[in-house]
Amino acid sequence: MSAFMDRDFLLRDESSRRLYHGYAEAMPIIDYHCHLPPAAIASDAPLGTIAEAWLGGDHYKWRAMRANGVAEADITGRKPDYATFLAWARTVPKLVGNPLYHWAHLELRRYFGVDELLSERSAPAIWEACNAQLAGPGFGARSLLMKMKVRAIATTDDPADDLAWHRSYAAGRKPGEPVMVPTFRPDKALAFEDSAKWKAYLERLGAAAGSAISSCRGLVEALEKRHEAFHALGCRSSDHAVLAPLARPAGAAAAEASFAAALAGKALPRPEAEALKAALLAEVGRMDARRGWAMQLHMGSLRDLNSAQFASLGPDTGYDASDDLPLARGLASFLDALQAEGRLPKTILYSLNPGDYDSLLTVMGAFQDGSVPGKIQLGSAWWFCDHIEGMTRQLTSLANLGLLSRFVGMLTDSRSFLSFPRHEYFRRILCGLVGGWVEGGEAPADFELLGSMVQDISYRNARDYFALPGIMD
Amino acid sequence: MSAFMDRDFLLRDESSRRLYHGYAEAMPIIDYHCHLPPAAIASDAPLGTIAEAWLGGDHYKWRAMRANGVAEADITGRKPDYATFLAWARTVPKLVGNPLYHWAHLELRRYFGVDELLSERSAPAIWEACNAQLAGPGFGARSLLMKMKVRAIATTDDPADDLAWHRSYAAGRKPGEPVMVPTFRPDKALAFEDSAKWKAYLERLGAAAGSAISSCRGLVEALEKRHEAFHALGCRSSDHAVLAPLARPAGAAAAEASFAAALAGKALPRPEAEALKAALLAEVGRMDARRGWAMQLHMGSLRDLNSAQFASLGPDTGYDASDDLPLARGLASFLDALQAEGRLPKTILYSLNPGDYDSLLTVMGAFQDGSVPGKIQLGSAWWFCDHIEGMTRQLTSLANLGLLSRFVGMLTDSRSFLSFPRHEYFRRILCGLVGGWVEGGEAPADFELLGSMVQDISYRNARDYFALPGIMD
Amino acid sequence: MSAFMDRDFLLRDESSRRLYHGYAEAMPIIDYHCHLPPAAIASDAPLGTIAEAWLGGDHYKWRAMRANGVAEADITGRKPDYATFLAWARTVPKLVGNPLYHWAHLELRRYFGVDELLSERSAPAIWEACNAQLAGPGFGARSLLMKMKVRAIATTDDPADDLAWHRSYAAGRKPGEPVMVPTFRPDKALAFEDSAKWKAYLERLGAAAGSAISSCRGLVEALEKRHEAFHALGCRSSDHAVLAPLARPAGAAAAEASFAAALAGKALPRPEAEALKAALLAEVGRMDARRGWAMQLHMGSLRDLNSAQFASLGPDTGYDASDDLPLARGLASFLDALQAEGRLPKTILYSLNPGDYDSLLTVMGAFQDGSVPGKIQLGSAWWFCDHIEGMTRQLTSLANLGLLSRFVGMLTDSRSFLSFPRHEYFRRILCGLVGGWVEGGEAPADFELLGSMVQDISYRNARDYFALPGIMD
Repeated sequence: MSAFMDRDFLLRDESSRRLYHGYAEAMPIIDYHCHLPPAAIASDAPLGTIAEAWLGGDHYKWRAMRANGVAEADITGRKPDYATFLAWARTVPKLVGNPLYHWAHLELRRYFGVDELLSERSAPAIWEACNAQLAGPGFGARSLLMKMKVRAIATTDDPADDLAWHRSYAAGRKPGEPVMVPTFRPDKALAFEDSAKWKAYLERLGAAAGSAISSCRGLVEALEKRHEAFHALGCRSSDHAVLAPLARPAGAAAAEASFAAALAGKALPRPEAEALKAALLAEVGRMDARRGWAMQLHMGSLRDLNSAQFASLGPDTGYDASDDLPLARGLASFLDALQAEGRLPKTILYSLNPGDYDSLLTVMGAFQDGSVPGKIQLGSAWWFCDHIEGMTRQLTSLANLGLLSRFVGMLTDSRSFLSFPRHEYFRRILCGLVGGWVEGGEAPADFELLGSMVQDISYRNARDYFALPGIMD
Repeated sequence: MSAFMDRDFLLRDESSRRLYHGYAEAMPIIDYHCHLPPAAIASDAPLGTIAEAWLGGDHYKWRAMRANGVAEADITGRKPDYATFLAWARTVPKLVGNPLYHWAHLELRRYFGVDELLSERSAPAIWEACNAQLAGPGFGARSLLMKMKVRAIATTDDPADDLAWHRSYAAGRKPGEPVMVPTFRPDKALAFEDSAKWKAYLERLGAAAGSAISSCRGLVEALEKRHEAFHALGCRSSDHAVLAPLARPAGAAAAEASFAAALAGKALPRPEAEALKAALLAEVGRMDARRGWAMQLHMGSLRDLNSAQFASLGPDTGYDASDDLPLARGLASFLDALQAEGRLPKTILYSLNPGDYDSLLTVMGAFQDGSVPGKIQLGSAWWFCDHIEGMTRQLTSLANLGLLSRFVGMLTDSRSFLSFPRHEYFRRILCGLVGGWVEGGEAPADFELLGSMVQDISYRNARDYFALPGIMD
Repeated sequence: MSAFMDRDFLLRDESSRRLYHGYAEAMPIIDYHCHLPPAAIASDAPLGTIAEAWLGGDHYKWRAMRANGVAEADITGRKPDYATFLAWARTVPKLVGNPLYHWAHLELRRYFGVDELLSERSAPAIWEACNAQLAGPGFGARSLLMKMKVRAIATTDDPADDLAWHRSYAAGRKPGEPVMVPTFRPDKALAFEDSAKWKAYLERLGAAAGSAISSCRGLVEALEKRHEAFHALGCRSSDHAVLAPLARPAGAAAAEASFAAALAGKALPRPEAEALKAALLAEVGRMDARRGWAMQLHMGSLRDLNSAQFASLGPDTGYDASDDLPLARGLASFLDALQAEGRLPKTILYSLNPGDYDSLLTVMGAFQDGSVPGKIQLGSAWWFCDHIEGMTRQLTSLANLGLLSRFVGMLTDSRSFLSFPRHEYFRRILCGLVGGWVEGGEAPADFELLGSMVQDISYRNARDYFALPGIMD
């Protein structure tokens, strides 16, 4: 029997341990998709108390607490305080089997050196221990990244954003500090469903790009200007919340007509709306292809399902879910439209529903064109899939239907500076999987080959795939 | 190598064995959803021969026999006799790997003390041994429940039912005998697709409720009267066969109009039919919320697919399947409609398609509101999912995406008095899963915590969640 | 730790080893569905170099090479030569975890006695070793089948084909040589979507059948004549690429009307097209039922997704994927239409999406009628599913929801004469699964029962199910 989360956590055999401790463990991190605030990194901002750091915005924890019968007042009812922390501490022992149980304890150990299990009983001491450290040196946002060997980080940014924090950080970055680049996330530019909000946004975007937007072509030109500006600051990928199955893009004339109708406040019929959405997305894809960026498509999420709580708390508060609509045909027709022009960029396909992995992988395979190793990627197990079984499933499906060796690996997708042990979690699962193959005679005991493979997946593949300025070593 | 189904069946390591034998095994049973006949329990009815007990109504076995090439004459062609039993005994050795293989042998062991494997060769002796016991004392329906430590049982009942057996059983129940309560299953009241049958049913229901039904409001009032009467006899949940994806409920006026059209024998267009169905279901949900009941939604089944056999044998004879339509969006909009009014009851979501678990769990999470621990539940692996892999998958998905600790656990969903070892089967699988986490260092070796957790899931969570009168101890 | 792919590859315990080495390993092979060219078998044709044999038509390998960043010129850009082989050899080490890694090395070992791992470094020596053998005796197409103990093979043939090679091979077949029979694959007769191509095909078919085709009835009569001719040459199954979900068949009048419209070059509305397709497929099903054939339905594939590459390379070049549309309702209504007439033939349901297995199995169960053991089969893990996890999932789902004992087992579905070790791969996985049940106490240690079961699945079930002329021993 292994002790809970000991040195060999998730490494059940000698080959797995050798791969992890001998190869993967020491690799640095490129967190190529997250939601950390650039300002906090640039200013090395303090995190506040452990209640604020853990419970200020983490809707994973909020959901768990709600499911455990904690009243909303003790979850989001105030600035997180000791009572909030205590409500969380009472929930943790009920989370055995959930990734939050591992994450919470990994974070206590790796950041704070706290080995005790969190519960109502241990809460007071852990509260003290963490807060003491958080108030001291080395616990600012940037310091924590460096502690975790984060070599580079890609934040998530709106095209209308002026990227001032990115600019100033890049200008003042010292050797050894992480590279920070923006990611181009034009979701709002494509959100024509809510006409008033969209028009307001188009004004902001037009202002940022220096040109008023009154047509589809005008929008594309504005996006292109911002795309260029993002590129200059090291951005190497666009990212997209794809909230409905993709489709074949509308042609230019149809797109203009639909755009004009949307701008006039008309609700577009569904096929027309889908074709316009795809046309706009394809335009960003073409920009990505031209500048050598990757296009990240986050598919299969349903947002803000609980309308009362959405009205009260807004988005990203724990009321989302995974969708279950068929994706394959629409996605294929979208990718084919770009591929037929020779302008399909490097693409990463994420789905929030693990039931989509197999189909996505087969669609992916039809658009690999030999130009870049692993050009089309199955994204890391995302959000609701980000647990041992989900990651194992993503890795296994990818291995079965694609080239695991070419996988660009893990990302946190997090809003928290304490989430980086998830890279460790991922690497342990990866090494456990590959090591298990060796033990069972399914892979050769060639540790030069396999050690290099897990290192590639941990770091080098992402480095080479994104080719972020300043980290090519 | 373990002997077949020995004392440590499905318990592969020390931690699993400790959890099962030390904690879960001795817990009593609350079978909160089954199809047992109240009359048989009330009268402690004999089961007949083993052929009658096993093959009189068990369509799981019938399907297996058909797939094995047994002619229908030897399956449902007559009152089950020795020839039927023999046809079954010949099929059993072909069932290695199927849960029926385990269930049959668990039942032989736990009820009859027969350790031999069933086959054509052993059939005569087993026939004799079982029938001798079935004819003797202690093998009546109620006696068998008590033998299995069944503390409470919830049958499945039509709102038009007078519940006479429930009333008389409750009046005469002796200490130590199981509590028996009805479950409110208004499927027929919502089955407006077959207008003639529906109208006949509405008359029956109106008679039971003491008021004729000629409008949607009238139907709701009749259901409400019966809901109240069921409550008085200890009913604490409604149950629903949801045969098509759910949808947003129709508003009151639209529902009345659709109802009138349906009553006039018109076929409703699909969106209208779905909205009416959802509106009626939502009305029951509101009653459930008001009285603190749980609403059990059994989704994703396809019924009576083989029309020739349906014509010949009727429903529930082995011609059903699991559906594969998308569920998430419709379900979310249904739940949101109730949640927005603050009248979403405790809800249990079952799907017959295990591919739905992940999406259902994420939708569930968006409607947990902290009012009741584990308020929205993912139902136990149901029917076609009720095997080692299916239960493991349900438990694992629930653990990954929700709070396994709060799970209300197993039920038989059975029409047979010999099905109760399935609770043992479930508990072994549960303890094997959690024990495996301990062995692998994924859960702490805290047996106070984990022993309590498996006991909660085996018994206490269901006790607290349903709060059936007479079992709160 | 086991050595890579040693004698006990995939056999992790004593029971698994005993089942494989003691029972399954020595069984002959019936490859009841493949795409091998009859002419090559009849003429015992040489395979050319290892580059030609491996890379001449294997789009699995082509996809892997594209994903690894190999330029198309080095994949399909010329007749496969040493440079092509080298590009493949460089890709192989990146394929750890993919079935191609196992297949390539199994083929090197079983056909060529080459134990070394393929890589850029070992490529020259392996190139020499394989080519020397391929140029020598015993490496013709038919010889290789015999080396692999292939007792019978069913090729895939168009109804318009004259089956000349089948006829001549059957006439000259010597004792000990494999039986070769055709399979009736009328896809082109049902492909009315492309009117011009379809009409040209109908002329060819009419010519083969000796009657011009100008109506639905005329098409059915032509197919019936060819069906009869195929039967005379030992054909015992029809095979169908079902490229969209099935549906309830159109009635005779509606089918004629749709047929006439299609023949006139009109695009049919989707429901009408689906009903016509189903009607034609049902007609073949009725012929199958009358002659005791099996109907093989290959569902859930998406074809030719990359239009530029399709234009350049044509079909079957690596641009296909698995679909994710719901299947269950349409399939059930199709099967029910035949079952209601008592003319549902033996049927094998394949899906390219493993997420369909559970639902398919439950639908299957509703159409087992006791007339033939295992009458409706879940097809072997197909194409993209043909890996350890996919086969394990297919076997496990089948065991859970049907009768694994009655499974007709593995097929290669291959275009390559070097694919037959996949039967070994399958048998090892099967024995590993069943052996694991014994070790864990989930199946009895009755090796007479289980050894017979794995032999049945390896060979005897297919022999009895298809009843090919000349192999009933």
